[in-house]
Amino acid sequence: MAVNLHIPDQSSIYPVAGIDIGIAEAGIRKANRKDLTVFTLSAGTAVAGVFTQNRFRAAPVQVCEAHLASGADIRALVINTGNANAGTGAPGLQATQDTCNALARLLGLAPEQILPFSTGVILEPLPVDRLVAALPAAIENLGPNNWFDAAHGIMTTDTLPKISSRQISIGGHTVTITGISKGAGMIKPNMATMLGYLATDAGIAPELLKTVAADLANQSFNRITVDGDTSTNDSFIVMASGQSGLHIDSRQHPHFAALYQALAEAALELATKIVRDAEGATKFMTIRVEQAGNTDEALKVAYAVAHSPLVKTAFYASDPNLGRILAAIGYAGITDLDVGNVNLWLGDVLVASNGQRNPDYLEGDGQRVMKEAEIVVRIALGRGDTAETVYTCDFSHDYVSINADYRS
Amino acid sequence: MAVNLHIPDQSSIYPVAGIDIGIAEAGIRKANRKDLTVFTLSAGTAVAGVFTQNRFRAAPVQVCEAHLASGADIRALVINTGNANAGTGAPGLQATQDTCNALARLLGLAPEQILPFSTGVILEPLPVDRLVAALPAAIENLGPNNWFDAAHGIMTTDTLPKISSRQISIGGHTVTITGISKGAGMIKPNMATMLGYLATDAGIAPELLKTVAADLANQSFNRITVDGDTSTNDSFIVMASGQSGLHIDSRQHPHFAALYQALAEAALELATKIVRDAEGATKFMTIRVEQAGNTDEALKVAYAVAHSPLVKTAFYASDPNLGRILAAIGYAGITDLDVGNVNLWLGDVLVASNGQRNPDYLEGDGQRVMKEAEIVVRIALGRGDTAETVYTCDFSHDYVSINADYRS
Repeated sequence: MAVNLHIPDQSSIYPVAGIDIGIAEAGIRKANRKDLTVFTLSAGTAVAGVFTQNRFRAAPVQVCEAHLASGADIRALVINTGNANAGTGAPGLQATQDTCNALARLLGLAPEQILPFSTGVILEPLPVDRLVAALPAAIENLGPNNWFDAAHGIMTTDTLPKISSRQISIGGHTVTITGISKGAGMIKPNMATMLGYLATDAGIAPELLKTVAADLANQSFNRITVDGDTSTNDSFIVMASGQSGLHIDSRQHPHFAALYQALAEAALELATKIVRDAEGATKFMTIRVEQAGNTDEALKVAYAVAHSPLVKTAFYASDPNLGRILAAIGYAGITDLDVGNVNLWLGDVLVASNGQRNPDYLEGDGQRVMKEAEIVVRIALGRGDTAETVYTCDFSHDYVSINADYRS
Repeated sequence: MAVNLHIPDQSSIYPVAGIDIGIAEAGIRKANRKDLTVFTLSAGTAVAGVFTQNRFRAAPVQVCEAHLASGADIRALVINTGNANAGTGAPGLQATQDTCNALARLLGLAPEQILPFSTGVILEPLPVDRLVAALPAAIENLGPNNWFDAAHGIMTTDTLPKISSRQISIGGHTVTITGISKGAGMIKPNMATMLGYLATDAGIAPELLKTVAADLANQSFNRITVDGDTSTNDSFIVMASGQSGLHIDSRQHPHFAALYQALAEAALELATKIVRDAEGATKFMTIRVEQAGNTDEALKVAYAVAHSPLVKTAFYASDPNLGRILAAIGYAGITDLDVGNVNLWLGDVLVASNGQRNPDYLEGDGQRVMKEAEIVVRIALGRGDTAETVYTCDFSHDYVSINADYRS
């Protein structure tokens, strides 16, 4: 059911010098499932992360934040699916520590040099013994060409793997950017979706990388929503190994803009692939709000439209029931909104002008756009110069089926 | 599919002295449908209303507010289904004025003495000629015993009529309270659901009735949600004819408390009946948040849980996937929430204590509660003394079907 999302040809995925990946079966929740992924990072790789704002932050999120804050030289990542290790209290934290300790011992690192991640069911104890027992097999599998398998390894209710890979030439260096992401439900990142990992062999100074990671997240993973549910485990990690020879130490560097642009495109591709493969999605919708007074009100309107079950079911039905969009704009929380200045386009069709039905609007024009798989909804508020874009999907029978059956 | 909601026996509905009702077929959207309802109110009836906070307030909502603010002696209500007359600009306002003018002429009133209401599809012009043409038939039908028919007449996607009726003895007077409501989707009143009308033959001083109406709404229609969509047309009207002989002029009146309690029970019954008949509902859920620091944070948590599609689909599946509730509590917006103080009950079962799985919790106990048609979710935040309750329903395949098909 994914919208214009396909499994990439493995030959189109570029390995990133300095980054190795190994996958194994740990049997966390189900047998015969590659549910454990380990990344190792060469010496000198800078790492930064952005994490969920949910107050029920999962144990691995808490440990990731502590390890990054400690200033330790991060050299490995470990990711399990099948169990989120969230709502698990002190035993959950201990399980995450045990995971880091075990991997550190096997790799000859300190536990603080490991970033742990979990995704899956909340409120159930992590079977850490099975996870630890499978670490040697993951290490045995380590290699530079496992991005394709890793993209599969981190999937939960995803139907397809999400991969973004490109090579560009910057300042005479061939720079590689490759990343993977996962997530299909419980998606209203703040930050980030469930999990996203983006690596480059460009070098980025560690302090700079922190702000770059936050900026990338804000324009990609923080602009997508499926169901308005912010996960307990959202994590987005950016890794810069420096092995391409290109080293960027500040935003004033002559090549910063080119590298940032390429990273931003990759982050947005990974984020929007999550929407394309969202639970039950049949349509990919871009909600663009223009002429807002500020970012906050632009996002309020965009998310009100993107979250409305009535809007989302109308798109599922290809029914141009566009009054539902006006209703969502009206309740978005801009208390002094003058609806007489609001214009609404569906694709290239002006549906409402000055807060009411455009006199020239024909139902057939709306119907034509609604039948497409990718639809742009554009809303002009007539209040200022700020624009923001949010990406979402429709709401189908399959969303209900998938989430009614997820644990059963 | 409605949850414990049945069509009442007509003999159990008490007429309210001073209130007559007439119903007719206007063919607003579909033929052979009683889609027009008129109320007439005897001289001396006090009327107060609470209306939607949606910025795209429908034309009839704007006119209702103006007529109430004018201080005119309200003597009639006119309600159409099939068309919301919202997002219709100046022509929509004119259509509403034409409706009031026509009814005023027929009843010998001034247009300001009429309150108009519309509900149905947004962004389409109201066929006011057909509405006006049917007014004489509605007037011909006027009588005190038409509450049952009126409850049917105002339905849209409702599957069952919603009626609340009772008689109580207060200070030697037999007081009647009867009301009707409608609504099944686009329900997150702020204020009020789509439409609610509550009448009593007690007398309530007009200025007092305004605050009583607001208080009643806040504890009934403003505490229910189906899909988080606030309608453009929400209206809640309270009418007090005074014909029982009981007259209340202040909150200090010795019988105010008894009358208010009875009105509050009726308002809550009408509001929760909307949830019981919500689009696709199979379960009725009461979300009670206790130990909050204030009303705002109690409602934030209650609505985060009540709106989460993941929580609602899990209830539909009778799956005690209760981590989803913790996740919703965590993202509800209390930025300094200490999750270590949070307790969660499902019915009488303590699921999570101190922010993690209760060690004594058994899946079978959660499963037992989840299979019931009416479920209380109780959340204690450990922050203060405030408690709030919100009423909602589950999220089923039928919600998607109904809203994907509504206009088609």
